[in-house]
Amino acid sequence: MIDLLICYDVATTTESGRRRLRRVAKVCTSHGQRVQNSVFEVSVTDVQLLTLRKKLLEILDPTEDSVRIYRLRQPREKFLEAFGRDQYVDFTDPMIL
Amino acid sequence: MIDLLICYDVATTTESGRRRLRRVAKVCTSHGQRVQNSVFEVSVTDVQLLTLRKKLLEILDPTEDSVRIYRLRQPREKFLEAFGRDQYVDFTDPMIL
Repeated sequence: MIDLLICYDVATTTESGRRRLRRVAKVCTSHGQRVQNSVFEVSVTDVQLLTLRKKLLEILDPTEDSVRIYRLRQPREKFLEAFGRDQYVDFTDPMIL
Repeated sequence: MIDLLICYDVATTTESGRRRLRRVAKVCTSHGQRVQNSVFEVSVTDVQLLTLRKKLLEILDPTEDSVRIYRLRQPREKFLEAFGRDQYVDFTDPMIL
């Protein structure tokens, strides 16, 4: 699996921008998690990456939005520091109840 | 040098949130570039990372904001795809005028 960070910058001051971000969130969260309002961590196979990229480019308004896809270092948690309000939940970790 | 991606999520609907984002931008752009509204690519030494982290945590409102710091794979451009409105300029590349 490939760990990716997807940053989708869009003006959420317009309804069309908010709609695109909702669509991006839907596409990305099917492969991972929303960790910030417009930042997603996903894990995909090579084939899933092709489909994901295609879907993102279909949603993207290239004059208004910016999408950046980073291949993360693995294991992701070793190369990440998170502070403050943190939306990340690692579903691959054993849960302690 | 360590290549970092800094994602700073903050509600820009309030003046205090916009002020914190401006302060984060000032701190981050002294070591790199703003590539999206709340996403920054920076290159720092180990010592600079300590100072940068300290400054970010001083600005952060932990109940309102989220900051995530990823150590990027190098060379960064090999592990990055960017589409759409793209604010990135690589000042380390030779400029073609």
